[in-house]
Amino acid sequence: MIITSLANPTIKALRALKQRKARDEQRRYLIEGIRPVTEAIQCGAPLEMLIVAPDLLSSAFAHDVITTYAAEGGKILTVSAAVFTSLTEKEHPQGLAAVGYIRYTTLSELPPAAVGWVALVEVADPGNLGTILRTADGAGFSGVILVGTTTDPFDPAAVRASMGALFSQHIVRTTWNDLLAWCRQQQIALVGSSDRGACDYRTAHYSRPLVLVLGSERHGLSDEQLADCDLVVRIPMRGRSDSLNLAVAAGILMYEITR
Amino acid sequence: MIITSLANPTIKALRALKQRKARDEQRRYLIEGIRPVTEAIQCGAPLEMLIVAPDLLSSAFAHDVITTYAAEGGKILTVSAAVFTSLTEKEHPQGLAAVGYIRYTTLSELPPAAVGWVALVEVADPGNLGTILRTADGAGFSGVILVGTTTDPFDPAAVRASMGALFSQHIVRTTWNDLLAWCRQQQIALVGSSDRGACDYRTAHYSRPLVLVLGSERHGLSDEQLADCDLVVRIPMRGRSDSLNLAVAAGILMYEITR
Repeated sequence: MIITSLANPTIKALRALKQRKARDEQRRYLIEGIRPVTEAIQCGAPLEMLIVAPDLLSSAFAHDVITTYAAEGGKILTVSAAVFTSLTEKEHPQGLAAVGYIRYTTLSELPPAAVGWVALVEVADPGNLGTILRTADGAGFSGVILVGTTTDPFDPAAVRASMGALFSQHIVRTTWNDLLAWCRQQQIALVGSSDRGACDYRTAHYSRPLVLVLGSERHGLSDEQLADCDLVVRIPMRGRSDSLNLAVAAGILMYEITR
Repeated sequence: MIITSLANPTIKALRALKQRKARDEQRRYLIEGIRPVTEAIQCGAPLEMLIVAPDLLSSAFAHDVITTYAAEGGKILTVSAAVFTSLTEKEHPQGLAAVGYIRYTTLSELPPAAVGWVALVEVADPGNLGTILRTADGAGFSGVILVGTTTDPFDPAAVRASMGALFSQHIVRTTWNDLLAWCRQQQIALVGSSDRGACDYRTAHYSRPLVLVLGSERHGLSDEQLADCDLVVRIPMRGRSDSLNLAVAAGILMYEITR
């Protein structure tokens, strides 16, 4: 059966997932596009179902993915092109999406890491968050720890920017005090980044595993948070501006730490 | 006199500047917000006029900027809040914008550089382009060379992401062949980046000044372009994904080169 009504209650509930409030209430999120859905399946991300619009789906590869998923007992929701388009933010939807369950890891559940984790304090932009997840995966970090009021890693823009890393990286939500207590107890170094850092990031010594901690795009880390860090590094700025884009700064530091 | 009509021909021409076609035809672009406009003035970016909406403008600092600009003979266009809001893409417009003239530098006009330039071949995303301009400024590069069909550095998203670097960095538009000829003639090394690069970016020797060249988000550099490079470096990928975000990769390489 193909759902064709935009007013169908299931569809209305899914469409609401564009908003954070509905994602938080339903504890579900949408994954759009053939490659992200395939990576979510491959990584074993917890999925409720696939959403398929046969009229939009031309890829033979995607048909194989769907057939295999259904053969293994996965649930498929088949919808019209108009219904699918109402769910997606893409200009040219590919006809394949998935509904994932939102799951966070806790600090105590984190497995040991060779390199470490990135902690983000009050990061505001979901594209930055998704890009940092992607870079963490590339650099060999194990996960992202979200501290305080941060943007939603399950926002469509974050899912898109993460390029699948959302499904392989651990994601923790916690408070500054709990992060600090965990680092102290586990003897994990807390490395902050700030333009007021005493140490050039290229000459610092990084003892791994560590937590690299970055503040918000607007305000960075507070003086209290910097004082709690075991090491605060600084990226030199040679031009007119006083800072880099947050995801760029995170990338430079993560790759330096894994040097 | 305050312009209050949305249908005013001057306003209609300015509103069209959201579209690239109109920017290319009028050779003008919009700069939105108090900080970007102030930096454009400080950098001596060629401006036609400021656009001011007194009803939206509460900043005393901005009033000083406008008064000084007018006292030095600068043109001010005063508009209603509704007219201003129709021109801007911001959700909470600050009441100050500027109209800049689009100017490109040519390769032969480029002054000597200590570090070098970043060349972008067919980059598609204006946010990435703006972020790369911002990082180039921070890392001590002198400009960005746009090769082939690239996105527009004067797109509002690029202007925003550049955080003022658009006004201090040189911006060149050229072809691959002209870039190659210029590098050969000036004895400037062309350093490409690719996941097929033979050399780890951390062990490469960079002779400066150089041109760091990056391909598009989707396709990277072509085999022919890689063959033209004097050196092709690779950023190691330790996780599931096969690439980094373009602006992140550019940042890691630019900061390594200035090490």
